[in-house]
Amino acid sequence: MYYGVDYYPEHWPEERWEIDASLMESAGINVARLAEFAWVKLEPKEGQYDFSWLDKAIEILGRHNIKTVLGTPTASPPMWLVRKYPQILPRDRDGHVMGPGGRRHYCYNSPEYRELTRKIVSAMAEHYKDNPNVIGWQIDNELGCHESNRCYCDNCLIKFREWVKRKYGTLENLNRSWGTIFWSQTYTDWDEVIIPRRTVGAHNPSLLLDFLRFISDSTIEYQNLQVEILRKICPDKFITHNLMGLFGGLDYYKLAESLDFVSWDNYPRFRGNPDPARIALSHDVMRGVNRGRPFWVMEEQSGSAGWEIFGPHPLPGEIRLWSYQGIAHGADAIVYFRWRTCRYGTEQYWHGILDHDGVPRRRYEEVKRMGEELKGITELEGSVYKAETAIIYSYDIRWAIEIQPNNPAFDYMEQIQKYYTGLFNQHVPVDIVHPLSDLSKYKLVVAPSLYLMTPEIRENLENYVRNGGTLVVTLRSGVKDWNNVVTDKTLPGELSDLLGIEIEEYYSMPQEEKYHIKGIGPERFTCKAICEFVNPKSAEVIALYEDGPFAGKPAVTLNRFGSGEAIYVGADVDLGYVESLLFWLITRSKIEIIAMGSRDVEVTVRESNIGTKFIFLLNHSDRSETIKLSFPGYIEEITLEPKEVRIVKR
Amino acid sequence: MYYGVDYYPEHWPEERWEIDASLMESAGINVARLAEFAWVKLEPKEGQYDFSWLDKAIEILGRHNIKTVLGTPTASPPMWLVRKYPQILPRDRDGHVMGPGGRRHYCYNSPEYRELTRKIVSAMAEHYKDNPNVIGWQIDNELGCHESNRCYCDNCLIKFREWVKRKYGTLENLNRSWGTIFWSQTYTDWDEVIIPRRTVGAHNPSLLLDFLRFISDSTIEYQNLQVEILRKICPDKFITHNLMGLFGGLDYYKLAESLDFVSWDNYPRFRGNPDPARIALSHDVMRGVNRGRPFWVMEEQSGSAGWEIFGPHPLPGEIRLWSYQGIAHGADAIVYFRWRTCRYGTEQYWHGILDHDGVPRRRYEEVKRMGEELKGITELEGSVYKAETAIIYSYDIRWAIEIQPNNPAFDYMEQIQKYYTGLFNQHVPVDIVHPLSDLSKYKLVVAPSLYLMTPEIRENLENYVRNGGTLVVTLRSGVKDWNNVVTDKTLPGELSDLLGIEIEEYYSMPQEEKYHIKGIGPERFTCKAICEFVNPKSAEVIALYEDGPFAGKPAVTLNRFGSGEAIYVGADVDLGYVESLLFWLITRSKIEIIAMGSRDVEVTVRESNIGTKFIFLLNHSDRSETIKLSFPGYIEEITLEPKEVRIVKR
Amino acid sequence: MYYGVDYYPEHWPEERWEIDASLMESAGINVARLAEFAWVKLEPKEGQYDFSWLDKAIEILGRHNIKTVLGTPTASPPMWLVRKYPQILPRDRDGHVMGPGGRRHYCYNSPEYRELTRKIVSAMAEHYKDNPNVIGWQIDNELGCHESNRCYCDNCLIKFREWVKRKYGTLENLNRSWGTIFWSQTYTDWDEVIIPRRTVGAHNPSLLLDFLRFISDSTIEYQNLQVEILRKICPDKFITHNLMGLFGGLDYYKLAESLDFVSWDNYPRFRGNPDPARIALSHDVMRGVNRGRPFWVMEEQSGSAGWEIFGPHPLPGEIRLWSYQGIAHGADAIVYFRWRTCRYGTEQYWHGILDHDGVPRRRYEEVKRMGEELKGITELEGSVYKAETAIIYSYDIRWAIEIQPNNPAFDYMEQIQKYYTGLFNQHVPVDIVHPLSDLSKYKLVVAPSLYLMTPEIRENLENYVRNGGTLVVTLRSGVKDWNNVVTDKTLPGELSDLLGIEIEEYYSMPQEEKYHIKGIGPERFTCKAICEFVNPKSAEVIALYEDGPFAGKPAVTLNRFGSGEAIYVGADVDLGYVESLLFWLITRSKIEIIAMGSRDVEVTVRESNIGTKFIFLLNHSDRSETIKLSFPGYIEEITLEPKEVRIVKR
Ligand SMILES: [Zn+2]
Ligand SMILES: [Zn+2]
Ligand SMILES: [Zn+2]
Repeated sequence: MYYGVDYYPEHWPEERWEIDASLMESAGINVARLAEFAWVKLEPKEGQYDFSWLDKAIEILGRHNIKTVLGTPTASPPMWLVRKYPQILPRDRDGHVMGPGGRRHYCYNSPEYRELTRKIVSAMAEHYKDNPNVIGWQIDNELGCHESNRCYCDNCLIKFREWVKRKYGTLENLNRSWGTIFWSQTYTDWDEVIIPRRTVGAHNPSLLLDFLRFISDSTIEYQNLQVEILRKICPDKFITHNLMGLFGGLDYYKLAESLDFVSWDNYPRFRGNPDPARIALSHDVMRGVNRGRPFWVMEEQSGSAGWEIFGPHPLPGEIRLWSYQGIAHGADAIVYFRWRTCRYGTEQYWHGILDHDGVPRRRYEEVKRMGEELKGITELEGSVYKAETAIIYSYDIRWAIEIQPNNPAFDYMEQIQKYYTGLFNQHVPVDIVHPLSDLSKYKLVVAPSLYLMTPEIRENLENYVRNGGTLVVTLRSGVKDWNNVVTDKTLPGELSDLLGIEIEEYYSMPQEEKYHIKGIGPERFTCKAICEFVNPKSAEVIALYEDGPFAGKPAVTLNRFGSGEAIYVGADVDLGYVESLLFWLITRSKIEIIAMGSRDVEVTVRESNIGTKFIFLLNHSDRSETIKLSFPGYIEEITLEPKEVRIVKR
Repeated sequence: MYYGVDYYPEHWPEERWEIDASLMESAGINVARLAEFAWVKLEPKEGQYDFSWLDKAIEILGRHNIKTVLGTPTASPPMWLVRKYPQILPRDRDGHVMGPGGRRHYCYNSPEYRELTRKIVSAMAEHYKDNPNVIGWQIDNELGCHESNRCYCDNCLIKFREWVKRKYGTLENLNRSWGTIFWSQTYTDWDEVIIPRRTVGAHNPSLLLDFLRFISDSTIEYQNLQVEILRKICPDKFITHNLMGLFGGLDYYKLAESLDFVSWDNYPRFRGNPDPARIALSHDVMRGVNRGRPFWVMEEQSGSAGWEIFGPHPLPGEIRLWSYQGIAHGADAIVYFRWRTCRYGTEQYWHGILDHDGVPRRRYEEVKRMGEELKGITELEGSVYKAETAIIYSYDIRWAIEIQPNNPAFDYMEQIQKYYTGLFNQHVPVDIVHPLSDLSKYKLVVAPSLYLMTPEIRENLENYVRNGGTLVVTLRSGVKDWNNVVTDKTLPGELSDLLGIEIEEYYSMPQEEKYHIKGIGPERFTCKAICEFVNPKSAEVIALYEDGPFAGKPAVTLNRFGSGEAIYVGADVDLGYVESLLFWLITRSKIEIIAMGSRDVEVTVRESNIGTKFIFLLNHSDRSETIKLSFPGYIEEITLEPKEVRIVKR
Repeated sequence: MYYGVDYYPEHWPEERWEIDASLMESAGINVARLAEFAWVKLEPKEGQYDFSWLDKAIEILGRHNIKTVLGTPTASPPMWLVRKYPQILPRDRDGHVMGPGGRRHYCYNSPEYRELTRKIVSAMAEHYKDNPNVIGWQIDNELGCHESNRCYCDNCLIKFREWVKRKYGTLENLNRSWGTIFWSQTYTDWDEVIIPRRTVGAHNPSLLLDFLRFISDSTIEYQNLQVEILRKICPDKFITHNLMGLFGGLDYYKLAESLDFVSWDNYPRFRGNPDPARIALSHDVMRGVNRGRPFWVMEEQSGSAGWEIFGPHPLPGEIRLWSYQGIAHGADAIVYFRWRTCRYGTEQYWHGILDHDGVPRRRYEEVKRMGEELKGITELEGSVYKAETAIIYSYDIRWAIEIQPNNPAFDYMEQIQKYYTGLFNQHVPVDIVHPLSDLSKYKLVVAPSLYLMTPEIRENLENYVRNGGTLVVTLRSGVKDWNNVVTDKTLPGELSDLLGIEIEEYYSMPQEEKYHIKGIGPERFTCKAICEFVNPKSAEVIALYEDGPFAGKPAVTLNRFGSGEAIYVGADVDLGYVESLLFWLITRSKIEIIAMGSRDVEVTVRESNIGTKFIFLLNHSDRSETIKLSFPGYIEEITLEPKEVRIVKR
């Protein structure tokens, strides 16, 4: 397994490199990411390259048995470049230039910047293609970070017009698909098409959604021009990019397509206390966009994080706990950000394993302990994460709800997290999947708020249920087509047959109000934001409203469809109801429950190709916690110390 | 009576038009507003007009006995127009262009836009001047909405200089009137005159007030260029515009002058729960700017309203209740926004009577019930609203206090509403009037914070009181002249004689503090924001401060002046004190009290020209409420169900 | 002693001037500040000067025994100037022009504005150089106010490049000093150097700190070009500038260097209730930047202050109390802002002694009473403020922490105030001093968060302690060098020897958390924001953490160093702990305690050059308060009425 650090030799005197490499080696480090912000040192003047310092650093690390992943340095164009090519700078929606001085100050669609990118990436690739210490590439760094890709410059305007033309073919089709007749926005020429710069009132939601897709596509196109160069010149080195977990500015499904595997940057303790279910969801999203395959954590928190303001350090045991959590969710490599805390620049308080003074302290010791332990669990290699349930997650839907939240308290990601946590708390592993992915291997699939709908997605869901699957769909589903236009069918539109219902009316609650629902049991649960009066056609009712405008009306229904069941939850219910509903469905759909007990103990399973199971138990709490494992022929009660990790092999 | 809907045939397939018209007719609908956002469909290319689709829609509606009000489509210039004439776009105070994509993206002072407006309006007028189904015109839509008229472009700069020159004549007069010597802002040339773009510190309040007047005048000038064209070409059709109730961005008194009557857009349930007294005040302001004559509700809420976020639907009974409330306040027509909820564009969640799917449900049924009822009360026609009390409301004063609120908790509109609610809660009908209007028909007039004062207004008030009227004036009155310059007289300046007082000192309270006053009764009331030490000269004291810096000093006084009485309230008192003071004055000034009982039952009176009275009783609460009516020779106790409406004829 | 008013004859008719002068004289006024916003009246057209009106005003005042201080009028360039030289306007970080209409709308670095400044100042100086009624000059008005000096225009860009080049000499030195290698920001040409305009992400903290220094230097350079002219032409008149107390936008130590003395503008009751210790600190900062010498209060609050919003008036007795407080802290002149409240312009609610109507009321009477009293205490003249303790205050450190607060609840000025208040509450006078000033005369020096450190400062502190001084240093000290780069030494870096400690780890707290420490006594105190695990080397521990991540670890230490003691407080402790620690140290370091008793009674001492002591007792509370004075051979218990002032002579 790879165990690594993000290392910036350019920040430190050369005399220190040997010391660093040696300390790393002692801690079990065997890989380092280098150079992803070092453009100016690699190309100090246009066209003049200097790889000597990097060669030396790679060589020193190599002597200490540390391989190198090279970052392409395009996240920070140097000052000489900006001065010569100021047209590459992005602009905000008011037209303000976003100047140099930070990072990511380039328009993804700038033809000049793309050309400059080709040159530096080609030069690096040629130089390192035969270096045996260099095992792979990371493209750029955190594409889309700071929403830097939401550029409103003229390059982007022109490219957007081309994108729209490619997508819709004719102006008639464009006008119809976006509903431009509203407020007289009909386009009579492609050159009239706008990007959503500042306006009076607000833009057309269909335009806004397509602009976000265009932004995402442009960024991915920019990534892929690098991928192509590297694949061609360095066919035997892997290519990855470091993603940002739950970040919503890019369609990570699409971004991941051209990569060998996905990496990501994990900072659980940012300002306040970490939520283990949120970290877990992030890992599962990353594995999901990586099509279920093993991934890397390319930046794992090893010190307090922040810029002008920084948060708390990881508490003792947390670095190790989070590292194991990554592995438990399918990571094949853990790389710590960063080796040593930088003394200058914007990130001088984004702490690493070592403090500014370079002295190894408790965080180094913890990394070292973990490094030693990893040597003892090599049999994990090749095993993969196992889940019988899935949650459907779509960037298009997320963007559409970001554009129109409907109600201030209605939030797509909150729902994804709530249903995820509902399973997490019952120790049930989950996959995160695309709405069009193959669902047949799952016993239970949850699809929160399928706000946008296509016939293809409907078909995928219907096939799944028809063949025996259990599907949960929640409020505000089937509302719109893929162009962000409301259906003219009675809601839930395309999904009416599958769910066996019609929405008689929906109600957006005043912010101070909460209503209640009651299901089969005696408990009352709250719901917020939006509630729907669900009119059952073929479905049966499994929960009613107790108060509010729909008091006594159905809130949740279950429809038998083919050999399966489709449940509809017409309200934004609380976690209590989610857990109780899921518990009932887990049992009903015969999902294997391998653990019961403390909610603070996370449970995941990795399985090897010969069927060996590795059950990870992670105690996230500050107290001892007990969990009861039960398999056919095996029951054990296990008590874990605070922050303890246990791997049970079966 | 007209009973209508706002209808957008251009949003729906032609096949549907007949179905819609038929459903409308069944609901009693007899008028529709059309076309006010359809410019691009009426003029798809510059100078090429296409009225065929609109002719057809008008014809179909006509066959179903539905007349048409046509909106001029200037609220949304088409994309082709913006592309060809980008100079029409407004700019914000920082100079940012407000681009297309929303609506109202035009500078009211743009000469090019005015010319383009003339052309489209003339073409429409010519085409429809002889169409018997077209009964009238609505100019544009909600002029000033989104503060779109606060434009800071160079057109506006030049026009403002002309406006200032017209108003002040000489630079000497301008400099003196604005007090430009402060901070060396004296103008030595007309071309030095600025508009209040972004500056360091803050602008001269006199400049700011004149800029708001100029903005208002420019918008009205823009409206009136349309009015002139329509009057000339279509002399037999009415002309209206849809105002926005309590909106403060325009001087609605001036705007209404050129219209046949005022219409307005009423959305009581926006995000939270509606305040009946606020809706009532809005109606009365609209009737007031319409010089007391009947008005239209051109957009009455018929579904939940909002863009990215939408609020709750009207609860059962509310559409009907609010419609009757409009009639009770003098409306002669109720038009619902909108017939069917649009599937696309910014307003796809601004719901109409029908949902997106076009299926009639409970909201349609309620509209239909009301439509049937209206057929039975035709005798209401010609009757007008009756009030014996008035509240003085001035846009100039509102703007001056908006520019300088004095204290964060001091708010002109809050005071207007508070004194209005004080009368509303005691079932006393109110007129809203301009400070220079004829007050002689009122027994009681309330003038909250006459912050700006002129000799003409003083004279109007003095004449009113001298002839026996009762006048209530509140704190911060007489402070400034009409140029927003503080008087050099001792406060209340021009009003000292009438009120028989001098303000010894005023005190702006720290935000956390509240003080108390006590009047004739034993109760203590709170006051906030600003309090004044009122030094009585000829007046007598009727309330004292109990604490604060003026403990023991007079807060409220009453002065006999001629045959009347002038009361001064030197503090921003709470609603409790307002009600108690007004109760005392109602009795004292012999105002007819026709109803007593539940505050949740609103009471208004319309009177026909032969003296028949229609007493409207509207129960806004969710409970049964009882009210006791009493006239000479008539006493009745009436219980109304939740949301019930009763019209008692006498 | 000078006792004065800020007077604007240009705002009032000439007929009034005589009345005003006479009323002033009756109140004991003997000086007036004039003309600092009157440019347009002094130079109505470019190059045409008119001093006649000002001559007349000065003459009238002179006849009433009132001397004049003249303000140079450069804070408000006239409209004709802006129209002719629009390039002088400043720009914000987005590039928006900050236009005319307010004040201070000029770039300090504009060559044209500097030239225009030279001309008007020279003309005034020549005209008044021999006028015996004119005793001195005030440069401009509140330089830096509204952060107007944070200009991002191209003038400033070019000047910044020159400034940087002067400071760092070579690009290599610049790059190393700022750490530009981070994010590839290395400069390869001086013309690549940027100013911190809007960017993606955030700027390099070293650049940001130097930009703030540059801003400060530019402003001071602008001041000094005026000083030079006035010194040359009017060598016998004093030159001052009115500073803003705790304002942080300028290095006031540097600004004061070229002035004869410092003046400042004191507004204790702005929106809420005044904090006496905050006013006191402001005075002491002003005296501190004035190198301990007597200063003026050039604007003392005499009415409620504010623009669009104004605060409460001074309560009865407060104008007098605050005036004495100024004298108690070393002021030699009190000048009230303003004589009469202006009727127009932005500051029409910044009230003066007289209201808008010019009628003398209670505020005038209070000023008059004070004027009479001052005539009886002329022996105060020449006496100076005496303190045995000092607090170190640095603008560079303040800026560095403003740029990177580390934790949202960590605030340099809050700490300065907290330790100041700790001494204030125990009636111990304090000096505010520069980190490099001579500390030998103090028994106790507190240095909150010496975040930036140089060898020179370290040496100054070491010498002080070595020679017997007691020094308190608090958390986050020694973190960085003077370029805002983190030290590579173990913290507290340069200060480790002096303090005898090493920081093992620091912890930035989540916002909702607070921890506790316990010192020698039984009490627990809270700490917030950031806590440090202080590892004692030669020091002894005097307080421990009770909870949090460092429970049981040292928080506060004391190190014997030479003949003195150096205390380190490794946490952001509450006022309770500060007081208890300081009480212990006051006793330990044998500081004279002259008063004990009510905390609401402020105590200061001025001492004449023949050793006479004037002990000021000021009761800031609304109740009678008792204080016990004790000197060798003298003990007295004194009770002061609310707002009472007593001067005890010894
Ligand atoms: Zn771009
Ligand atoms: Zn304009
Ligand atoms: Zn500048």
